[in-house]
Amino acid sequence: MRTSLKVLCAAAFALLLNTALGAHAFAAEQVKVVYHLADGIDQAARAMANIRNHLRAEPDTRIVVVGNGDGIRFLLAGAKERSGRPFDAQVKNLAAQGVEFRVCTNTLTSHDIPESQLLPEAKLVPSGVVEVARLQAKEGYVYLRP
Amino acid sequence: MRTSLKVLCAAAFALLLNTALGAHAFAAEQVKVVYHLADGIDQAARAMANIRNHLRAEPDTRIVVVGNGDGIRFLLAGAKERSGRPFDAQVKNLAAQGVEFRVCTNTLTSHDIPESQLLPEAKLVPSGVVEVARLQAKEGYVYLRP
Amino acid sequence: MRTSLKVLCAAAFALLLNTALGAHAFAAEQVKVVYHLADGIDQAARAMANIRNHLRAEPDTRIVVVGNGDGIRFLLAGAKERSGRPFDAQVKNLAAQGVEFRVCTNTLTSHDIPESQLLPEAKLVPSGVVEVARLQAKEGYVYLRP
Repeated sequence: MRTSLKVLCAAAFALLLNTALGAHAFAAEQVKVVYHLADGIDQAARAMANIRNHLRAEPDTRIVVVGNGDGIRFLLAGAKERSGRPFDAQVKNLAAQGVEFRVCTNTLTSHDIPESQLLPEAKLVPSGVVEVARLQAKEGYVYLRP
Repeated sequence: MRTSLKVLCAAAFALLLNTALGAHAFAAEQVKVVYHLADGIDQAARAMANIRNHLRAEPDTRIVVVGNGDGIRFLLAGAKERSGRPFDAQVKNLAAQGVEFRVCTNTLTSHDIPESQLLPEAKLVPSGVVEVARLQAKEGYVYLRP
Repeated sequence: MRTSLKVLCAAAFALLLNTALGAHAFAAEQVKVVYHLADGIDQAARAMANIRNHLRAEPDTRIVVVGNGDGIRFLLAGAKERSGRPFDAQVKNLAAQGVEFRVCTNTLTSHDIPESQLLPEAKLVPSGVVEVARLQAKEGYVYLRP
């Protein structure tokens, strides 16, 4: 057998091994979840509790919250739940646990909300819906609408 | 060619064949859907009708219903649709067709609902949102929010 | 080395190369999104704006809107947003950009709506929920509920 063929076979074997191990790694890999908020304060209040429960049960989960439309209200300075409980401390605590908050720039524009009103944890993305789709299609996130 | 190399090539071929067949199997495999209920009685009534239609059109579909928050109300003994139609018989019929109903234990705790109030078809999971994410990320379910 | 083994190794290599290139193609491929509408006129109005923003930001996105239950109301002739803005021109414009609109036949039947009331852009599918699941499980769409 020529050396080139030996090399070819070895490469093929290595790649197959890699594929097999890769598949195994996939099964064990971190769960990534996009929480999509578009409804308003009540949905956001539910989401805060959901995400706390999520991370308590599975601390290793990667969570990104994407808000568009009324789903960004809870990320404005001074926003409160219907019960009066403020959102800012909850957002800060979740951010400290690794949760990311992304806000649709289109919404800020169409609702005439200046960026300065956003909590410091909120990061702008050009489009909330594009971000929700991208996270799923390109980064392996699964979808959850609280 | 040495025997070890023959074996290597045969193994490579077998694995590739397996991959090719596996890809084919994937395309043909059973559709699995998680119905996520979190809103209350009206959403649950819609979901019952949706799932009946789903299974009538595609009887081979694997369906798991996960309820958290107000999405568990329809699984409590005596729960009725706004129209007065009780949920228990509908749940029983769908369960007989293989639909599974999973309830968030966090919700029972935070709403002070004893497990004994649940319909017998409802099975507890520690966290509804973790279950919704897990089914998608680890078991190949797709998401649907009725 | 026998010819058959050479061929085997070459085939293995070709398939592996194909797999590697296939994986690359996957990362670059078009994002496909199913917008699931089931709530009514207000959700549909939000969806129209969402989809316009989506396509403005990512014109190459493949979008299918699936409506079932009250999610088909905006596709009936004469339907208007709460603000009075009609839906027909919006649907026509989005369809011209490649957006497809699919309507649940079960809903038409159960709501006693004749097919003739639908806008010309609306295409019937036997079951809206089956379509939402199928697009995800079989055609690589990601899910978004406006």
